[in-house]
Amino acid sequence: MRILVVNVNTTAAITDAIGAQAAGAASPGTEIVPLTPSFGAESVEGNYESYLAAIAVMETVRAYPEPFDAIIQAGYGEHGREGLQELFDVPVVDITEAAASTAQFLGRTYSVVTSLDRTVPLIEERLHVAGLSARCASVRASGMAVLDLERDPDAAVDAIVEQAVRAVEDDRAEVICLGCGGMSGLDERVVERTGVPVVDGVAAAVTIAESLVRLGLTTSKVRTYAAPRPKRMLNWPPKLG
Amino acid sequence: MRILVVNVNTTAAITDAIGAQAAGAASPGTEIVPLTPSFGAESVEGNYESYLAAIAVMETVRAYPEPFDAIIQAGYGEHGREGLQELFDVPVVDITEAAASTAQFLGRTYSVVTSLDRTVPLIEERLHVAGLSARCASVRASGMAVLDLERDPDAAVDAIVEQAVRAVEDDRAEVICLGCGGMSGLDERVVERTGVPVVDGVAAAVTIAESLVRLGLTTSKVRTYAAPRPKRMLNWPPKLG
Amino acid sequence: MRILVVNVNTTAAITDAIGAQAAGAASPGTEIVPLTPSFGAESVEGNYESYLAAIAVMETVRAYPEPFDAIIQAGYGEHGREGLQELFDVPVVDITEAAASTAQFLGRTYSVVTSLDRTVPLIEERLHVAGLSARCASVRASGMAVLDLERDPDAAVDAIVEQAVRAVEDDRAEVICLGCGGMSGLDERVVERTGVPVVDGVAAAVTIAESLVRLGLTTSKVRTYAAPRPKRMLNWPPKLG
Amino acid sequence: MRILVVNVNTTAAITDAIGAQAAGAASPGTEIVPLTPSFGAESVEGNYESYLAAIAVMETVRAYPEPFDAIIQAGYGEHGREGLQELFDVPVVDITEAAASTAQFLGRTYSVVTSLDRTVPLIEERLHVAGLSARCASVRASGMAVLDLERDPDAAVDAIVEQAVRAVEDDRAEVICLGCGGMSGLDERVVERTGVPVVDGVAAAVTIAESLVRLGLTTSKVRTYAAPRPKRMLNWPPKLG
Amino acid sequence: MRILVVNVNTTAAITDAIGAQAAGAASPGTEIVPLTPSFGAESVEGNYESYLAAIAVMETVRAYPEPFDAIIQAGYGEHGREGLQELFDVPVVDITEAAASTAQFLGRTYSVVTSLDRTVPLIEERLHVAGLSARCASVRASGMAVLDLERDPDAAVDAIVEQAVRAVEDDRAEVICLGCGGMSGLDERVVERTGVPVVDGVAAAVTIAESLVRLGLTTSKVRTYAAPRPKRMLNWPPKLG
Amino acid sequence: MRILVVNVNTTAAITDAIGAQAAGAASPGTEIVPLTPSFGAESVEGNYESYLAAIAVMETVRAYPEPFDAIIQAGYGEHGREGLQELFDVPVVDITEAAASTAQFLGRTYSVVTSLDRTVPLIEERLHVAGLSARCASVRASGMAVLDLERDPDAAVDAIVEQAVRAVEDDRAEVICLGCGGMSGLDERVVERTGVPVVDGVAAAVTIAESLVRLGLTTSKVRTYAAPRPKRMLNWPPKLG
Repeated sequence: MRILVVNVNTTAAITDAIGAQAAGAASPGTEIVPLTPSFGAESVEGNYESYLAAIAVMETVRAYPEPFDAIIQAGYGEHGREGLQELFDVPVVDITEAAASTAQFLGRTYSVVTSLDRTVPLIEERLHVAGLSARCASVRASGMAVLDLERDPDAAVDAIVEQAVRAVEDDRAEVICLGCGGMSGLDERVVERTGVPVVDGVAAAVTIAESLVRLGLTTSKVRTYAAPRPKRMLNWPPKLG
Repeated sequence: MRILVVNVNTTAAITDAIGAQAAGAASPGTEIVPLTPSFGAESVEGNYESYLAAIAVMETVRAYPEPFDAIIQAGYGEHGREGLQELFDVPVVDITEAAASTAQFLGRTYSVVTSLDRTVPLIEERLHVAGLSARCASVRASGMAVLDLERDPDAAVDAIVEQAVRAVEDDRAEVICLGCGGMSGLDERVVERTGVPVVDGVAAAVTIAESLVRLGLTTSKVRTYAAPRPKRMLNWPPKLG
Repeated sequence: MRILVVNVNTTAAITDAIGAQAAGAASPGTEIVPLTPSFGAESVEGNYESYLAAIAVMETVRAYPEPFDAIIQAGYGEHGREGLQELFDVPVVDITEAAASTAQFLGRTYSVVTSLDRTVPLIEERLHVAGLSARCASVRASGMAVLDLERDPDAAVDAIVEQAVRAVEDDRAEVICLGCGGMSGLDERVVERTGVPVVDGVAAAVTIAESLVRLGLTTSKVRTYAAPRPKRMLNWPPKLG
Repeated sequence: MRILVVNVNTTAAITDAIGAQAAGAASPGTEIVPLTPSFGAESVEGNYESYLAAIAVMETVRAYPEPFDAIIQAGYGEHGREGLQELFDVPVVDITEAAASTAQFLGRTYSVVTSLDRTVPLIEERLHVAGLSARCASVRASGMAVLDLERDPDAAVDAIVEQAVRAVEDDRAEVICLGCGGMSGLDERVVERTGVPVVDGVAAAVTIAESLVRLGLTTSKVRTYAAPRPKRMLNWPPKLG
Repeated sequence: MRILVVNVNTTAAITDAIGAQAAGAASPGTEIVPLTPSFGAESVEGNYESYLAAIAVMETVRAYPEPFDAIIQAGYGEHGREGLQELFDVPVVDITEAAASTAQFLGRTYSVVTSLDRTVPLIEERLHVAGLSARCASVRASGMAVLDLERDPDAAVDAIVEQAVRAVEDDRAEVICLGCGGMSGLDERVVERTGVPVVDGVAAAVTIAESLVRLGLTTSKVRTYAAPRPKRMLNWPPKLG
Repeated sequence: MRILVVNVNTTAAITDAIGAQAAGAASPGTEIVPLTPSFGAESVEGNYESYLAAIAVMETVRAYPEPFDAIIQAGYGEHGREGLQELFDVPVVDITEAAASTAQFLGRTYSVVTSLDRTVPLIEERLHVAGLSARCASVRASGMAVLDLERDPDAAVDAIVEQAVRAVEDDRAEVICLGCGGMSGLDERVVERTGVPVVDGVAAAVTIAESLVRLGLTTSKVRTYAAPRPKRMLNWPPKLG
């Protein structure tokens, strides 16, 4: 089984971290293929960058030359999952939704701890659209930018733990989701310091994608995610580089 | 990895069917242990029977003598999952929630097709409490009692397909969940005749339980699912048989 | 008119307090019959104990040998009311719902003050399922266990008042519901110290049950609460003692 | 105990019918005082008439010279209950809310059958504001105007039964509320023909008002329903006649 | 184009301020006609006064002798807009809804800052009924009575700014609506001190009313806002003065 | 005042129709600048095309060389409005939201009639995210593709009217929104045949954009729509043509 794990930003180091986290969660026999988009922002922290990432992820997967069994979109609170579902038949798993779905099996409520305050609304809206917000206690910002999380994991853990503790105590969360692709691999250290289960979206998404493939389940094509109708496209896809 | 798959009724033939479905979905190395409650109704089709099943499932698991890694409650729309989460640390997966969570990765909306009209409200309420009803298009009754589903699979498939088609066309469902433990194993025939993905809750629950175990995730004990406080119990557990 | 008032735990002193509170609220000519379950926990503070109480209450009422006109389930936030409605035709009134319904006639919003933090989610979910949460400002825990409330009423009043004041000031509640069967009889002292109406669920339930009986209204049997279908029951009801 | 039962329209025959229904539901020792507003429309079937009724009911109660213990506003889906709660300390019970609260103790869902299609939105909005719409299956119009219901009870019963049956079968209602003050007294005939419990709002309101008075509960004055601040009033109350 | 801008209280100075604010927002060629109700309270700060204002506004517009193109009800959180829509065909714009609709084009969430704590629930309920509460972060009270806002604009600005800042920081509001007709004209000073867009409901309502008129759109008469049916009215309209 | 009206597809004839509709709704002194995206699909009928349109619209506006006062995104149910709000300070008005906001001033409920069944979910989700779905009675598909609407206006009107009538009668809508940029200019003919107000989103958006500009209101930059942080962008914007 081959699963594409697509980063939403163009920073290769983050793709590497995501890929390692995914590989660590994969079953024997699952090949994880980490992909970096061929265009877009070095980090995604707002709607403009997120919409651009949505399209970049789609084109990056379209350009992938080999067959594959599932796609993981490894950005937290980003746009675009529905487009991937239209373009491909294989299961598509967004890490925001994977983390929330997994958290809901572990506690009555969960909170997400993300990077900057400005990304909170994006995550809230994605959870809302995905029908996964009823048990979301809060989405909290650690105040660290995506690239800073990457650069300084110790400071990242401190900032995440501070918000996680407040989520558990003030917002009555029972599970914490690490709300940023760049937080991959920090879960164990946050568990140690908070005492509640911590869900890493990338790892959760790998197990869900594997499960869907094993069960032979694919995206419903009956209405919302039907393949795009044949269309004349102007100047697209773009000529890169 | 050992997963207990607990039927909610006391009909051994249904336990067998559930066990076979679970085993078919399990990874190599996973041991599926099907259990029949030591007391309760031969089929569960209402609140009284479901509350009794809740307690029977808990006592049955408590009486299981060997270690295990996860519990699956294999009844659709039944009470009790929260009690199991209090009593045990290992992950607990209810098939109602497993099916809904899985369906949400496959289509924008899902419908459940269950046995009798009187069980529809139980399923609706469990999905509501689980925060999984926002994308539920409908819960529909096939009109067949649980034991009739077991006895006459051909009639069962016909009755399920009729409601599934109406769910897709009238309620705009994009995925169908088979809403009764007794429907285990009918999924492929329903797929053939409806053209949309069909989720079997038992199979979905197995993959979710395996995933949680593999990720090292266990039930949050911080508040709702903390272990029961030590108490004097009057006349409980019961002396059976 | 005879009304059964069933405690959810097996502590006779609490049954006595509930019975006295119910008798004080009853009209002349109403006979209050307090019942203690024949099995279960000495206090109910979580899902396991609550599910067990649900079944114990049902069996206790089934074993009651005389005719009766209504049933009150005197536990706050407990499971089981729907099962009683299936088993019997007479009106069934849960004190959680009785208190909330009554509070809604007195102020725009209400809060519940209960025993331990871990029982908050049970109450929230019962109000949610009962469609009574839209005007619920908050459910707050006094931090006192059920049996401690019983043993030390002065400390109980202090702890309840502290949370009630915060509910009124911070959560904008306009009415307080005493959220534990074991708080029966404390309402007047809480009114004195908070200045807002305080609803005792047992007393409220008695007047509602009496009203339903007087109006000739009984449980709808058309779907959800239809009598259980005839079934073979394994090892149930249990042999006690 | 004296309860004022205030009609919302100025048709004395409807006041009489409401008064008789209320008296029939009252306990011995309760005095029912039916009141007709001193100004307003002969029937209330829309927002303009309903807002006018709101004020007329308030002024009518203000002009009532004797002491009283509770107020019932006997119009279905009408504005104004909150104003009465500000002006008086005694409990105020709106029949729309009384019927819905009562119905919720009898079945999982209820429907309202009212007079004209144009009054459906008023009832829906009052239930929505009152936090009582979560279990409302539907509000259906019989198509008969208020005064026609009064004039031709046989046709009224036929029209109500037709919609009640559709509510039970199509909307999955389990209880029916008679959604018009002018339907008072028709409940038994609708029960006979539908087989589900039928709630008359006036009768329900009488028992609730009596219960609140007996329990010593009065309107919370802490915020929303505090007495109006002293104000200069221009040209009000009006000079009538 | 002539737009009636109707104050909800009987204080002429507030009508003047509202009229000036409206005129300042109007396009060339639009005539603003400020109206003071012919009866009612000097300020509206609760349900009784608000219901009275509803009727007073309707009668005041009915008594206006000239043709007009739109009506603005210039009270925040007041009852009555639906009645005006029944009585007239021209567009009716409530400033509460105008402000909220406008704010939603400027930020993801908005808060309302109003006069007294007791008016908060009225505003919340009007936004709820209008389907405009999903993006409302909070309704906050400045603690100043309506007539005090009018008398001491500097203190008003201070009190409003204090709550606006808390709304932005604590409630995550991105836009502020000035929630009282008596705050007309203070918007620019609040913008200066908060840095977020501030919406004045009267100004917003003028542009919306003008837009509806220019687009040739009028109130739908198909159901809810159909003209009242012909009725006998008792003692109404009142004889004033 | 200059308003950019940006089509979401690359079909110039539709841009022309949208531009004409916008110009017809504009005030004297407003310059309407219709823009066609420089890349993307000839019609937008699904998520992939819509995400691409989101980015294409943003880049097209970024490339516009002159100053402007507001932006209208003239696609129904399309992604991207939030990105425009980040990139620019001037007001951004999406026609989906403009139509819904306008409809809510005209009737209690509204329905949208759009092109294909597959676009219904996109519109529903955009209304949901925008907090404008509480009063949406339904979103209905005419069954005509975007380009067919353009090519055969008579068939389009027939298909729209059929669904509009069902929305009014079956779904209880009181206003109809034309849910496709390609329906611009058909509103009057639909009014004639349905008798309810019909809102054209482009026209509504023009008046809203003008109003916001006249009131001096701009996008809140305090959190969600703050300008993107400076970032390294890989291969973006694209080299076209």
